[in-house]
Amino acid sequence: MAPNLEPLFAQRTKLLKASDVRELLKYSQDPTVISFGGGLPNPEAFPLEDLKVVFEELLHEDNTPSLQYGPTPGDPLLKRALATMLAGRGIPANADQIIVTHGAQQALELFGRVFLDPGDIAMVTQPTYLGIFTAISVYEPDYHGVPTDDEGILTDVLEEELRALAMDHLRPKFLYVVPTFHNPTGVTMSLRRRRALVDLAAEYEVPIIEDDPYYDLRFEGDTIPPIASLDKEGWVIYLGSFSKILAPAFRIGFAHGPLDLVNKMALAKQGVDLFTNGFGQRVAERYLSLGLMKRHIPKIRKLYRHKRDVMTEALEESWPEGTSWTHPKGGMFLWATVDPAVDTRALLPKAAAKGVIYVAGHAFYAGEPEINHMRLNFSYSSDEAIRKGIPLLGSVLRGEGGESRLEEAVPK
Amino acid sequence: MAPNLEPLFAQRTKLLKASDVRELLKYSQDPTVISFGGGLPNPEAFPLEDLKVVFEELLHEDNTPSLQYGPTPGDPLLKRALATMLAGRGIPANADQIIVTHGAQQALELFGRVFLDPGDIAMVTQPTYLGIFTAISVYEPDYHGVPTDDEGILTDVLEEELRALAMDHLRPKFLYVVPTFHNPTGVTMSLRRRRALVDLAAEYEVPIIEDDPYYDLRFEGDTIPPIASLDKEGWVIYLGSFSKILAPAFRIGFAHGPLDLVNKMALAKQGVDLFTNGFGQRVAERYLSLGLMKRHIPKIRKLYRHKRDVMTEALEESWPEGTSWTHPKGGMFLWATVDPAVDTRALLPKAAAKGVIYVAGHAFYAGEPEINHMRLNFSYSSDEAIRKGIPLLGSVLRGEGGESRLEEAVPK
Repeated sequence: MAPNLEPLFAQRTKLLKASDVRELLKYSQDPTVISFGGGLPNPEAFPLEDLKVVFEELLHEDNTPSLQYGPTPGDPLLKRALATMLAGRGIPANADQIIVTHGAQQALELFGRVFLDPGDIAMVTQPTYLGIFTAISVYEPDYHGVPTDDEGILTDVLEEELRALAMDHLRPKFLYVVPTFHNPTGVTMSLRRRRALVDLAAEYEVPIIEDDPYYDLRFEGDTIPPIASLDKEGWVIYLGSFSKILAPAFRIGFAHGPLDLVNKMALAKQGVDLFTNGFGQRVAERYLSLGLMKRHIPKIRKLYRHKRDVMTEALEESWPEGTSWTHPKGGMFLWATVDPAVDTRALLPKAAAKGVIYVAGHAFYAGEPEINHMRLNFSYSSDEAIRKGIPLLGSVLRGEGGESRLEEAVPK
Repeated sequence: MAPNLEPLFAQRTKLLKASDVRELLKYSQDPTVISFGGGLPNPEAFPLEDLKVVFEELLHEDNTPSLQYGPTPGDPLLKRALATMLAGRGIPANADQIIVTHGAQQALELFGRVFLDPGDIAMVTQPTYLGIFTAISVYEPDYHGVPTDDEGILTDVLEEELRALAMDHLRPKFLYVVPTFHNPTGVTMSLRRRRALVDLAAEYEVPIIEDDPYYDLRFEGDTIPPIASLDKEGWVIYLGSFSKILAPAFRIGFAHGPLDLVNKMALAKQGVDLFTNGFGQRVAERYLSLGLMKRHIPKIRKLYRHKRDVMTEALEESWPEGTSWTHPKGGMFLWATVDPAVDTRALLPKAAAKGVIYVAGHAFYAGEPEINHMRLNFSYSSDEAIRKGIPLLGSVLRGEGGESRLEEAVPK
C-alpha cells in the first residue's frame, strides 16, 4: 500500500498536465501507428560517422577535465565555438554572453524563472511552440497572443497592442518568437517584419526571445538574417539547439543575450542542475570546431527537402477539397488547415484508430484556439509511411467509415 | 550599450545569490591555490578504461535510438538496471517508480516544485547539504532545522517537533536527510536512528527524502542499510547519483519513490528539459550492466581511504589545540570545528591569501548558523597538496602572521 501523497502536493502540481505532444507518445509506442506527431529528427540525419570521429578523439586525448564538475554557464571551449558559429549567422556574439543549457527547453524554463512574477505579461505568437507553455506556465504569466500570417507575426497588430499596454503603464516581460521555419506552422518571418520587430523592441523596451533551432535546416530559398543580427541595441535574446543538427540525446542548447541576463540565468541554473552534461558539451564543441557539422548539414537539408516533397505530393493527391497546408522552405513541420467545422482534437482518436496520428493545432494557442489545424511532422517518417499515412488521414477527414483498426481488433 | 533589464526581473531573481561553494570557484581557478572547497571526485577515480569499453560498445552497436528524443522519466533499460542496483541495497525497487534526473540536484529541484507552496514546512538537518537550499528556496519554504550528533539526526528532538507541529495541525511536506557519509559532516546515521526515522515518517505521514550519493564510497566498517530498505510503508524517497561512482559530467541522478510522486515529477520535468541526456543514460546503463562499476568501486574506496588518512594525519600533526574534526568511514568530506570565537567565513579571505580554501560551515545551516566549522574535502587534492594545505590552514587558525601571498605579490 503506497501512501497517499496527494494532500502534500503544491497547488502548481495539481494544475500540471501532460502536453499534447508528450501524450501522443502513448499512441506512438505502437510501432504500427504512423506518427506525424512528434517533432523528431529523422534517424538518418544523425551524423553517426562524425560521432565516431569525435568519440575516438575524446577517448584518446586526456579527457579527464571534461568528466569533472564544470562551470554552470557552460564549457568555455564550447562557448567560444558557439560565438564563432553565431558570428557566421551575422550575430555579433560574445562567449561571455552565452549560457549552455540542457536543451533549449531549459533556456525557456530559465527565462520564465528569471523574468516572471505571477500576472506578468508574456507575449507569444498565435500559434506558438507549445514548449513555451510547459516551460513557463508554472510562473503564472498572463499570455498575450499576437496573430500571424504567411510572413510571420503581424507587427502592426503587435504595435497597437504595445501602445495600448504602454498607455496603461504595462510592459511585457518579453515576446517569444520562432521566426524561421516556425513550429508548428513552418512559416518564416519576412525580413521587413524582422526589422519592424527590432524597432518595436527598442521603442517599447521589450526583450525579444528569438528561438532558432531550425536555422540550418533551410532547403529552399535564401537565408533570412536572424532577428538578433539586425538588433543594434541588445534587446534580442537568441536561442539555439543541437537537437536538430546533431542529435537530441546530448541535450545541448544555448542562449545568447545581455550579460546581466545570462549571469542571472546561470545563478538560477546553479540551483536547478549545477551545469549541463559536460560530455555532451565536448561532443558539440568537437562537432563544430572540427568542421564536421558544416559538412554534415547539407545531408540533412537534402533529406528533409525530399521528405517535405513526399508529404506535399501525398497531400495534393489525397486530401479533400477545402483543406490547405503551408509550404515550408525548411524545418520539420507543415501546418494543415481543414474544414472550419472540424475539430482536429476530437478527430484524433478516430485517426489513431486507423493507424495515423498528428498534433491537433489547439495546443499551440494561448487562450482560445483555432480548432481546425494539424501540425504534421515530415522529417521523421519513412517515405512509405508518409505515402500511406497522409491518404489515411485524408479518408478520416472525408469521414469515410471503413473499419477502424480498433474495431477490427474486436472479435466478432 | 546593453539595455537595462533590471526592472524586468522577477522578485525571485532579485533574491538569487550564488552558493558559497560555487563562489569558491573564483579562488580555485588559480591553480596555485589548494582547494578543500569543492565537492569534487578525484580525477584518478574516473574509470577511464571502463569508459573506453562502454564507448566502443555504444559506437559499434546500432546506437540510433539512444540518440533520439527519449521518454521523460528515463531510458527504460537504465531504469531496469537501477532497480536491480537498488535491490542489491535492500530496497524493494520497481523500475516504474524511478525517474532519471539531470544529476541528483535536479531531483531536489523537482521535489521543491512538486511539493512546496510558499510557507510550507521543509525539514532539514542542521547542518545539511547546501544544494537543497539552492534547489528549493525559490519555492519559499519555511525551513525547520533538526539538530544532529555523531549518530546523525536527533530523532527524539524530531519527534517533539513533529508532535508540536501536529498539535498545530501542521504537517511538513518532507524531511531531507543525507544519512550516509553526510555532506558536509561525513557522519553516518546509526541504524537505530534510521529505524526511528522510518517509524516517525509513518506515524506523522511525512515523506523522507534520503539522498544517498556516497553509498558505495564506504572504505571502513560495515554497510548500514539505507533508510529506504527499512521502510515498509513507502514514505521514503530514495535518491542516487553517478557523479561520485562514474563521473559528474554525465549528469545522471535518479529518484525512487511512490508512483504517484514519480509521475508528477516526470510531468514537471517535461516542461523543464523534456528528458535527461540519453547518451549519459546509456553510458550509466552499460557501466552498471556490464559489471564495470562493481569492479571499479573498490579502487575509488582505496583511494579515498588513503586521502582521508593523509588529511587526518596532517590535521593531527599541525592543527592547534581546541580544534577537532569528524572521522568519516567513507564519502568525501570531513567537518572541522575550531575555536567558537573564530568565524570561518570571515577567515576565508585570509586563508585564500595564503593559498588554501575550504567551505565555511555557515552555508549548511537553515537559519542561524554555527560559525566555527569548515567543510574539508579530502577526495580531490593530491597527497602533496593535502600535506601542504592543512598545515597552512593550521597556521591561519593560529593567527600566525607570516606574509600572505597577496602581500608578497605587492611590490614593496
